[in-house]
Amino acid sequence: MTDPKASFKQQALDYHEFPSPGKISVELTTAAENAKDLALAYSPGVAEPVRAIAENPDDAYRYTAKGNLVGVISNGTAILGLGNLGPLASKPVMEGKALLFKRFAGIDAIDIEVTHRTTQDFINTVANIAETFGGINLEDIKAPECFEIEQALIERCDIPVFHDDQHGTAIVTAAGMLNALDIRNKDIADVKIVCMGAGAAAIACMELIIKCGAQRENIYMLDSKGVIHTRRSDLNEYKQLFANNTDKRTLQEVISGADVFVGVSGPDLLTADDLQLMAENPVVLACSNPDPEIRPEVAKAARSDVIMATGRSDYPNQVNNVLCFPFIFRGALDVRASAINDEMKIAAVEAIRQLAKEPVPESVLVSAGVDKLEFGPDYIIPKPLDPRLCQRIARAVAEAAVESGVARIDLPANYMAD
Amino acid sequence: MTDPKASFKQQALDYHEFPSPGKISVELTTAAENAKDLALAYSPGVAEPVRAIAENPDDAYRYTAKGNLVGVISNGTAILGLGNLGPLASKPVMEGKALLFKRFAGIDAIDIEVTHRTTQDFINTVANIAETFGGINLEDIKAPECFEIEQALIERCDIPVFHDDQHGTAIVTAAGMLNALDIRNKDIADVKIVCMGAGAAAIACMELIIKCGAQRENIYMLDSKGVIHTRRSDLNEYKQLFANNTDKRTLQEVISGADVFVGVSGPDLLTADDLQLMAENPVVLACSNPDPEIRPEVAKAARSDVIMATGRSDYPNQVNNVLCFPFIFRGALDVRASAINDEMKIAAVEAIRQLAKEPVPESVLVSAGVDKLEFGPDYIIPKPLDPRLCQRIARAVAEAAVESGVARIDLPANYMAD
Repeated sequence: MTDPKASFKQQALDYHEFPSPGKISVELTTAAENAKDLALAYSPGVAEPVRAIAENPDDAYRYTAKGNLVGVISNGTAILGLGNLGPLASKPVMEGKALLFKRFAGIDAIDIEVTHRTTQDFINTVANIAETFGGINLEDIKAPECFEIEQALIERCDIPVFHDDQHGTAIVTAAGMLNALDIRNKDIADVKIVCMGAGAAAIACMELIIKCGAQRENIYMLDSKGVIHTRRSDLNEYKQLFANNTDKRTLQEVISGADVFVGVSGPDLLTADDLQLMAENPVVLACSNPDPEIRPEVAKAARSDVIMATGRSDYPNQVNNVLCFPFIFRGALDVRASAINDEMKIAAVEAIRQLAKEPVPESVLVSAGVDKLEFGPDYIIPKPLDPRLCQRIARAVAEAAVESGVARIDLPANYMAD
Repeated sequence: MTDPKASFKQQALDYHEFPSPGKISVELTTAAENAKDLALAYSPGVAEPVRAIAENPDDAYRYTAKGNLVGVISNGTAILGLGNLGPLASKPVMEGKALLFKRFAGIDAIDIEVTHRTTQDFINTVANIAETFGGINLEDIKAPECFEIEQALIERCDIPVFHDDQHGTAIVTAAGMLNALDIRNKDIADVKIVCMGAGAAAIACMELIIKCGAQRENIYMLDSKGVIHTRRSDLNEYKQLFANNTDKRTLQEVISGADVFVGVSGPDLLTADDLQLMAENPVVLACSNPDPEIRPEVAKAARSDVIMATGRSDYPNQVNNVLCFPFIFRGALDVRASAINDEMKIAAVEAIRQLAKEPVPESVLVSAGVDKLEFGPDYIIPKPLDPRLCQRIARAVAEAAVESGVARIDLPANYMAD
């Protein structure tokens, strides 16, 4: 449908317009040919599952699509790198997310774009429709409102509510960081970390790596005004948690001696000179997309001991949410989890880390277009198209859900067995 | 999947449980195999349609599934004949409705079950998610709240909002009634009509047949307390519109000399003795389902000049919403209508009436299991599985939308041509 000779932009538009507008459709999973089928599917047959669910709400997982259905919900206030363009303009992204859910984990996902007046209005709207779904993936909602929204919805809903821009990014970044530190024999508890950016992803990343062993006082976070420190009076409550008791004010001051740089900010904000100030064997996760905080060729030229990851598919070590979100939901849905808690997130981190340390199947090499992938500086996280991701992450997450007491059912027999 | 030897109830449960829970899934309409596909579908390609829609909101119809997507939305307060069982228990019905939308008109429909505190809370929730859809089908919401809800949503949304329990029923009933009166050479403007029931469907039916020519003062509506008359002080504002200035109080008093009986109430409320009191050549639309207000065999035995319709598929003249709702939405969506107005509803009535007067294709006879279907007392409305319904109704509705000024685009070339 798309003309390979057209510009990429035109190909992207054509991809969305043809063969039919958009990327997803709703289809039937049961026969609906004749009058008998319709009598079972609708009147009078449908009364039976209705009565069953009225008596036992869990039967909704048995007789409806709820248990495999995720709502991909946005208000369009932080669309990709494009900003606040409103709910309708976010629809292609949300449909794209639904496409990824299906493609990677067989999950039925439908996008819901929400218009609202206040944050409370948004929260209330999503909570009111939550019964429809087995899980809710929040997407492209700007900080700091996204924190309040997610927290309130977690409290009000008895299904998983997961803001992927925060936690999906955090899980993949944490896996990459921990594996890179492993390679360099550095302990997460000791490293100095600079985080450029203080939005949803940045804060979630830092909170998660603290749960993975980093020390809060070793973290230096910067927003557009510079280092976040205890004397600043312009910090929201989420940034305040990262206010460092330091007299350093600039990136150049805090990057000096840092072991890890995490960029979730904007292009080219880390220079080769900055990189030179970092400690030996630095780890740079420059996740700004499509243009990273420092380009890998610039970083490598400045110093050969750097381990680099970016958000891009055309360099090694792509930090890509799709490594995580389809599979964390897969695991959560399969045990009817009431939430995605820290135990499940950390289980996902560990599953991703472990997979990167294993031999890579030929098919992954082919789809990645490389001859070799071996755990090391240029391969700290698995490739997004690695078919083992679903099995490993979903299983780890489902097990963690059961162990931490948020699963409504036990693991299915031989769940995601090898 | 269903065992034909099992009870119907068990077959209905099995139908909903296997091969996978529920009746619908979300599927991809575009390629999503390799990294190039994913770059077009999501990052970075998705930025192009996002920008296009931000500049021109109508591009959402071009680059997303919105234009063919209907939200089937309920709060579960009036599920089938089962009553108020709450949103979750309504899910099988709403999925069933989505199945019918797809099966009959190729429309992508997704169910949304809404929990809420107040009517205003429900209205606000639905209005807030309306941007997602090309149209909204409200379903199984109890009266009188359904009237306020629909009216408020019509005012707040720029897409069609249609409460099928009201208008779908009204359209098919009006078509049947008008055709039956045609057969008996009676003029709608002169006939005396008794309406048993004063809920959503009853009120919508009577409002629509008034728009089709009936006189309000010739209508006698009854609720559980008897005839609705001007001296009653217990009437909500919707029933008040049908308060008749009469000293009649019972069904027996008003049925005397009536030309038409419309039942949207409950089983066996019209007796053979009541029927005997009606005028010559009475028309009885006994729509209570599955058990009509009077059984056709009882009615026919009482008097041979009756024209009967019921909600059942096992008798002639089935009044079934599926004759209308998929196709009225098909026509509305295809011209991006901002509403489904009276002109479009009346166009649907006329299209259904006309189709019943035409020769019936062999395939319809086969699927209906009959030798002959010819316009007359036993064939006043088309069969639900008649494949011509979509073409005829959608075309009539789309044309009416264009002519009445609610269409955003003109009729596609050769739209639904023969």
